[in-house]
Amino acid sequence: MPKPTPRVTLLTDFGTVDGYVGALKATIATTLPHAHIDDVAHDVPPGDIETAAWALGAYWKRYPEGTVHLVVVDPGVGTKRDALAIEADGRFLVGPDNGVLSWALREASRTDAMRSIDRPHDDEISATFHGRDVFAPAAARLAAGEGITSLGPRVGGIVRLPWPEPVHRADGIDGVVIHVDRYGNLITNLPGGQATSDIVVKVGVTQVDVRRTYGDALPGELVAHVGARGLLEIAVRDGRAAERLGGKGHVVSLRAPR
Amino acid sequence: MPKPTPRVTLLTDFGTVDGYVGALKATIATTLPHAHIDDVAHDVPPGDIETAAWALGAYWKRYPEGTVHLVVVDPGVGTKRDALAIEADGRFLVGPDNGVLSWALREASRTDAMRSIDRPHDDEISATFHGRDVFAPAAARLAAGEGITSLGPRVGGIVRLPWPEPVHRADGIDGVVIHVDRYGNLITNLPGGQATSDIVVKVGVTQVDVRRTYGDALPGELVAHVGARGLLEIAVRDGRAAERLGGKGHVVSLRAPR
Amino acid sequence: MPKPTPRVTLLTDFGTVDGYVGALKATIATTLPHAHIDDVAHDVPPGDIETAAWALGAYWKRYPEGTVHLVVVDPGVGTKRDALAIEADGRFLVGPDNGVLSWALREASRTDAMRSIDRPHDDEISATFHGRDVFAPAAARLAAGEGITSLGPRVGGIVRLPWPEPVHRADGIDGVVIHVDRYGNLITNLPGGQATSDIVVKVGVTQVDVRRTYGDALPGELVAHVGARGLLEIAVRDGRAAERLGGKGHVVSLRAPR
Repeated sequence: MPKPTPRVTLLTDFGTVDGYVGALKATIATTLPHAHIDDVAHDVPPGDIETAAWALGAYWKRYPEGTVHLVVVDPGVGTKRDALAIEADGRFLVGPDNGVLSWALREASRTDAMRSIDRPHDDEISATFHGRDVFAPAAARLAAGEGITSLGPRVGGIVRLPWPEPVHRADGIDGVVIHVDRYGNLITNLPGGQATSDIVVKVGVTQVDVRRTYGDALPGELVAHVGARGLLEIAVRDGRAAERLGGKGHVVSLRAPR
Repeated sequence: MPKPTPRVTLLTDFGTVDGYVGALKATIATTLPHAHIDDVAHDVPPGDIETAAWALGAYWKRYPEGTVHLVVVDPGVGTKRDALAIEADGRFLVGPDNGVLSWALREASRTDAMRSIDRPHDDEISATFHGRDVFAPAAARLAAGEGITSLGPRVGGIVRLPWPEPVHRADGIDGVVIHVDRYGNLITNLPGGQATSDIVVKVGVTQVDVRRTYGDALPGELVAHVGARGLLEIAVRDGRAAERLGGKGHVVSLRAPR
Repeated sequence: MPKPTPRVTLLTDFGTVDGYVGALKATIATTLPHAHIDDVAHDVPPGDIETAAWALGAYWKRYPEGTVHLVVVDPGVGTKRDALAIEADGRFLVGPDNGVLSWALREASRTDAMRSIDRPHDDEISATFHGRDVFAPAAARLAAGEGITSLGPRVGGIVRLPWPEPVHRADGIDGVVIHVDRYGNLITNLPGGQATSDIVVKVGVTQVDVRRTYGDALPGELVAHVGARGLLEIAVRDGRAAERLGGKGHVVSLRAPR
């Protein structure tokens, strides 16, 4: 049986001007020259842990088992926050213990291991670039097939980002916008299955019709539909919903028709 | 003879903040783990079909035969537009039937197959992310060597973006700026061979001298020259022509000297 | 012994909208289909040689020997500037002779070869896209294992970007900010070892405390620390130092305490 292709994906806030992405890849290429390295995104706003945590959910479980997902959005580098390596549903997640990996774990059917990555000796690592000196080496070792237990001791718990649960009320459900994507679509925390075609969806005071897809709306019309991750999304056909309705944190309510 | 390296290139308007690019790559990596995946550009302005169609022309025929070019700029996702897989000059083009692939076909010496990609059953695909659920699986199957005929039925015609042909007049030729690139260069629809050194080139009322290359102009000087794709371009040495002359759609005229 | 994985890294100012990056990769894929191609950054500001020269220093020596680093920031394309291929410390550097490779050579322990790349016949190359027509073919040939001597004649000297050396004064050392990174950190030309914890660091008139790492500062506090490349950096914990103190070219002084 051929050995699987080792693979590391990268999600960072490093941007695409500085050479920081090159430093990450150099570390991986040195340990494991034939690994495939997939850029996912490097323009996460600096330090924006929630945006990275959300983005990770779009792909981590869709990759083949054995894939290593490296996430470096690390505003607390140089503080005492832990460095994590996690095995869940057959994939590996590597990144700082600041919540950036925690939403992925909400979607995992099982978490097999959570380890705190041992740091190399202090004189071999920088104080402020653990992406290069701590996380990338650990990711490369996992991609090379090294067991996760060799990376460091077991950890009992990790930092969890709060996930806003929809609030059930007598007459319906209230959710919030948890992410605005590049197209200005508002992605909510409301399970798409809740939005039947006869329900009343409101963003603030604006009522939005439920459709199966953009094609069922007119150009410029607001539409609520089930998005690619199974959650209710608010969009404008051929437009940007965020410009009409506002963004993250806005309340989206579902109510039974009168 | 060693088998060629399977290869998929990506051109999208997904941006580099969300995890959408990761979802595309995950699909390809699952079908064909050892494929090379080349990012070309992910910052095409959302829904800007012409910009993507133009960008595709810069590389699609330069790649080795067998390469699969996946283009996902798809403002009509969720409408009835077709999903296309095309074989031309030994390469494959996969994307929505909205014109984004049509300028490439203008440059093809032969088009061997045009197929409409069969959609998986509706309950397996999202209504709004066909890049992940329809186009990427088709691209991976082509890269894996599966015949294009297996993807779906033959299509007779596709949506064509209008290509503005230069207008021949009694005293010369009128063209337009069809693209402004990152450097502020104005790329026209005029074949470079038309611009001999004694011809008078005007952008609006501004006359521009024809040179072989930037090096024949002074810093800050406007120059008309034959660009990397054989078309006449207007540039400013060490500057941005678009700021001086305006952008897409402006008329560029060639006239014989008096 | 298995052959090493051939690898080419890319650093350009091509942006991620146009198809120019695709044209580079197509050239490499045609010569050497199984090469790994690592994007480092494509959003270097157009023509900004210093930014690219600085970025290159973050990764070039960290990659395995044999790696080819292609750098195309080439505002002088079409002028008489040379095209360079350099072998230093076992890696290869390919790019225009405009200084963009010169800071890397400052960090090399040895430079083994400096060659001027022979241009293909004029009718095969564009006047303005040497990245595609001159540099990428040379990079691919080096990655394929072809000897650097075959690329063209030896060159005696190259264009060097000035590197501002710190100025030693009776009471201390004066340096400057040489780069502002994506996080708004000010990177100076001062060796980190100079900044002991009792030294007085000033950016202009603002005094900044020396710490080992961000974690030793309070949120919002300015901190001077040794950065990932061994130079003194000025940062704001959870903030952007460049917004408080200004950017490139600002003087940073070290003085003994009174």
